[in-house]
Amino acid sequence: MNKLKRDRQFRPLPVPDVDVHGLFGERQDAICDSTAETLLDRCVEAGMLQAIDVTKPSPGVVIPIGPWGGSTQMFWDSDLGKSIETVAYSLYRRGNPALEARVDAIVDMYEKLQDKDGYVNAWFQRIQPNRRWTNLRDHHELYCAGHLMEGAVAYYQATGKRKLLDIMCRFADYMITVFGHGPGKMPGYCGHEEIELALVKLARVTGEKKYLDLAKFFVDERGTEPHFFTDEAIRDGRSAADFHQKTYEYGQAHEPVREQNKVVGHAVRAMYLYSGMADIATEYNDDSLTGALETLWDDLTTKQMYVTGGIGPAAANEGFTDYYDLPNESAYAETCASVGLVFWANRMLGRGPNRRYADIMEQALYNGAMAGLSLDGKTFFYENPLESAGKHHRWIWHHCPCCPPNIARLLASIGSYMYGVADDEIAIHLYGEGKARFKIAGSDVELTQKTRYPWHGAVHFDIKTSTPARFAVSLRIPEWANGATLAVNGEPIELGSVDVDGYARIEREWRNGDKIDLNIPLEARALWANPLVRQDAGRAALMRGPLVYCVEATDNGAGLNGIRLGEDLSANTAEIAELGGAVALDVPVTKNESDWGATLYRTKPPATGKGTARFVPYHLWDNRAPGEMLVWIRSAK
Amino acid sequence: MNKLKRDRQFRPLPVPDVDVHGLFGERQDAICDSTAETLLDRCVEAGMLQAIDVTKPSPGVVIPIGPWGGSTQMFWDSDLGKSIETVAYSLYRRGNPALEARVDAIVDMYEKLQDKDGYVNAWFQRIQPNRRWTNLRDHHELYCAGHLMEGAVAYYQATGKRKLLDIMCRFADYMITVFGHGPGKMPGYCGHEEIELALVKLARVTGEKKYLDLAKFFVDERGTEPHFFTDEAIRDGRSAADFHQKTYEYGQAHEPVREQNKVVGHAVRAMYLYSGMADIATEYNDDSLTGALETLWDDLTTKQMYVTGGIGPAAANEGFTDYYDLPNESAYAETCASVGLVFWANRMLGRGPNRRYADIMEQALYNGAMAGLSLDGKTFFYENPLESAGKHHRWIWHHCPCCPPNIARLLASIGSYMYGVADDEIAIHLYGEGKARFKIAGSDVELTQKTRYPWHGAVHFDIKTSTPARFAVSLRIPEWANGATLAVNGEPIELGSVDVDGYARIEREWRNGDKIDLNIPLEARALWANPLVRQDAGRAALMRGPLVYCVEATDNGAGLNGIRLGEDLSANTAEIAELGGAVALDVPVTKNESDWGATLYRTKPPATGKGTARFVPYHLWDNRAPGEMLVWIRSAK
Repeated sequence: MNKLKRDRQFRPLPVPDVDVHGLFGERQDAICDSTAETLLDRCVEAGMLQAIDVTKPSPGVVIPIGPWGGSTQMFWDSDLGKSIETVAYSLYRRGNPALEARVDAIVDMYEKLQDKDGYVNAWFQRIQPNRRWTNLRDHHELYCAGHLMEGAVAYYQATGKRKLLDIMCRFADYMITVFGHGPGKMPGYCGHEEIELALVKLARVTGEKKYLDLAKFFVDERGTEPHFFTDEAIRDGRSAADFHQKTYEYGQAHEPVREQNKVVGHAVRAMYLYSGMADIATEYNDDSLTGALETLWDDLTTKQMYVTGGIGPAAANEGFTDYYDLPNESAYAETCASVGLVFWANRMLGRGPNRRYADIMEQALYNGAMAGLSLDGKTFFYENPLESAGKHHRWIWHHCPCCPPNIARLLASIGSYMYGVADDEIAIHLYGEGKARFKIAGSDVELTQKTRYPWHGAVHFDIKTSTPARFAVSLRIPEWANGATLAVNGEPIELGSVDVDGYARIEREWRNGDKIDLNIPLEARALWANPLVRQDAGRAALMRGPLVYCVEATDNGAGLNGIRLGEDLSANTAEIAELGGAVALDVPVTKNESDWGATLYRTKPPATGKGTARFVPYHLWDNRAPGEMLVWIRSAK
Repeated sequence: MNKLKRDRQFRPLPVPDVDVHGLFGERQDAICDSTAETLLDRCVEAGMLQAIDVTKPSPGVVIPIGPWGGSTQMFWDSDLGKSIETVAYSLYRRGNPALEARVDAIVDMYEKLQDKDGYVNAWFQRIQPNRRWTNLRDHHELYCAGHLMEGAVAYYQATGKRKLLDIMCRFADYMITVFGHGPGKMPGYCGHEEIELALVKLARVTGEKKYLDLAKFFVDERGTEPHFFTDEAIRDGRSAADFHQKTYEYGQAHEPVREQNKVVGHAVRAMYLYSGMADIATEYNDDSLTGALETLWDDLTTKQMYVTGGIGPAAANEGFTDYYDLPNESAYAETCASVGLVFWANRMLGRGPNRRYADIMEQALYNGAMAGLSLDGKTFFYENPLESAGKHHRWIWHHCPCCPPNIARLLASIGSYMYGVADDEIAIHLYGEGKARFKIAGSDVELTQKTRYPWHGAVHFDIKTSTPARFAVSLRIPEWANGATLAVNGEPIELGSVDVDGYARIEREWRNGDKIDLNIPLEARALWANPLVRQDAGRAALMRGPLVYCVEATDNGAGLNGIRLGEDLSANTAEIAELGGAVALDVPVTKNESDWGATLYRTKPPATGKGTARFVPYHLWDNRAPGEMLVWIRSAK
């Protein structure tokens, strides 16, 4: 593998610069058709607008919120922020004046809500106004601000409207006066990370380094001693020991971030922190952060990650437990956590393309994250188990509605994750039909992908340039892609000769009309888990390309654990119209025969016979008749 | 199979009439040496004596209770009742004046505590005195009374001291004035069953039918409409809908007991109810109850029971979920629930010996129940998973200490479960070294078992009679006992010719010096679970005789899911001194070889090689070095 110093700064392409078609385009259409509007509808039904509308009475701590039950929540601003962000991306794809007007009305409410000093938070202005900044460990104020910032940036980029951006800049400016070292300042940070990566977005769109510096302060301060959370509890008259989650590991505040080497605590919090750290590492070329991040990356992806890219197996802390503890049926594997892993992986590419990160980004995206949204864009998974006895289904809404807008905003902005761009290099991280526009090396470059990926492995690129220009194009060659081939203008290129960190790096003078052909063989492959994962012992999972497959009762009948993979894993493929043309795999298996009566236990094993099982992409499960689902299939080997 | 009308009344032999040696005797010695005293010590440390001692201030609702944390509990009387019962049985075996004096002191406190009208309950006299009989659904008052009654009966039988028995008779007499139909009476019953079976014990020892009638009233009333729990909630100003467990199934009060055909709700409550129902069916020859009980028995044992006789897989309701839902690692399978299953099974034998019940009684006893007490009698399991990743261990005590005295009182009185006696028949339900005394058919009969059962299958019986007498001896032939043989005075008896409901029934004139020889082959056998039990698919459990076996890391190293049973299940046996001479099984298996590096998932299955795995009795696990444990082993078949 060639060595190339990866200390440049790759930034994701802005969302408006990518047109997305194919599978991603279909998901975005569903978001434009349904999800974006649904998110706002549910926020209204939940009473969130009453919460931020100063012309209406405060909703109080407990109000009924829709048929799903629940109460007013201190992190509602975050749901509104993510919903605004989703709507904004949907407006890039498809203008919708009615939807835009709804967001404008929300922004107007926030403008009226904002305090003179810049502070904005529905809960701590309307419901507990005397509790501002009293409990950063639990109160989500900076977390909420971060999501509103992300929404503001997206809405500004989508519509050119600055009002929300200005609101959030005023809030950020106020934060700079509140947080820091020195007299009258708080050396604090939020128990739920998010503000860090949001401030980086704000800095990038405004060009204001002060926001980067505040993000870096929050990152640097985290977990240092004397411990801020302990000090603030004492100041607030609370017992620091009386913490519902018992350990500061819950919010990755147990030690300074550069000393952390184990992924612990609440999974979404961890992913947001590491995303912010990676952004800071990129913006400041901070190798001390990069080193910690690489250690944490290995820790997560070689000891604590489901094959779906789901992370955080336990409901109790919405997060991590022991190494290799990956229960399938009770997997928490929150949609938000896989979305967060995509965020982190994407930001690990900020120092240069590397398939170590991009392969996992793709895996988490196509499996653990995308499962969170139904094909029609109307229902959502919160938990993403890898086995279901038939009762786990997507819901309309949730008392803690963090996941719906999270998966929606990711998919609505997925174009930005497909490409990274540096001064002299375009990195293609994800494949999918569509078009991207770059300004690079003095040229306006348009790159068109023609492909049916991830269903078929042939990817054709057409390159348009305003003027010939020398730069590199780096194409990810997934680690699983045995026998991939590459050609430029019909000339084959030996992949080994151009490999840099798992990308084929082609540096040349690119001219208008140049073509690249990449072929990635998509063969079904069985994966076995490290034997230390006790829950997967004697079982295998099927993947094809980046997609994890599963069996569903609707194709295979009930009793999915009666299916066993044999030696022969050859698969016939079929396109399933009901699943948007997804490629299914029909694989020879043995199956239990019905020779078992009413006995519960007996000394004769179940009889088996030969058959075929149909596997479908995991992220598409529960889009047809409800029933059992299983990823890890019993295996003869 | 011969048909014999089973409408007679078999009652368990009183505990003092059986001397127990062998394995059961060792457990009883540990209880005499440690557990009985430990139970009282812990009750004291928990503050229970302060709670019942009217000369001391009431402890209040929340007090620190020992190093295990917790608070004053409204069901503390039940823990004292079960502890007294355990001590009483231990006194049968081995006099202990100091221990007896401690119980006498407790009884004196209860005497002072008892209200003039007969009511006794620490919580509702000392802590919430205005709440008596206001919430039978949740408040455990009758449940507590039941356990004190059981303790009183045992202590009276052990010591001849009537004081506690008299206290509880006065309470029962008062209950008769409170509960019933008609003006000023409550048609109520306890949310947590127990009083029903306790009143039967009280009736049997006092000869007072009124106590039986009250028990029958509680059984008959349960689940009828208009619903008592709903009515009492309204009277008490509570919302009946606001029930933490949502459904009256939780306490088997969702429909009249004779209409119940599915085992639901809290597992211990269910077992205690069915035990009471079976007692009533026996005492009243009530076939309408027997029919319901037989249906419920099938429902439990063919769809909802772990192979260990553990029941109630879920922590959320400490009880039942869906049919065939038997997760191993997260199994709740409370010790008390298996103890309760032994109670119920034993009472199902009240209408006549039938191995349908007695086999399960033995299975639940030797596995799910006995696991609850350590070999040294000092530590206890509450949950009894069938797989552990290494962190599940017996504890010194628990904030809800129901299990320690429950398993202790069962084992301390196990002699009573070994034999049933009717006017003209002795039924031998369980085998084990020891001696039992009967008065039957005008003769004093002494039956001695000489055996090393359950480690060895030969059981020799010596019969002494004061005078020759005609009666039947029925010996259980376990369903799993392939090739069992029987001889009387050396004359072989063909088992098929004397089989009645799985018992070899030998009716003859028995004379002093008669001998019976029963030989039960104890071969290791593999069991497979109904394929509808998804958690056991592709796995088998080893049993030998009534014992379920497991593998532990201390014998086999870590990574127990890397072990796979092959076609050859021949086992070498070894006696393990550390486990009290228990028979271990050494079985040929395949095992994972260490060819796996840091990867989490790979396309090559784990390499395996041939080896041997050591299996030990499940109930003895976690008595040596702590580590992983597994019952359901991967199976080639």
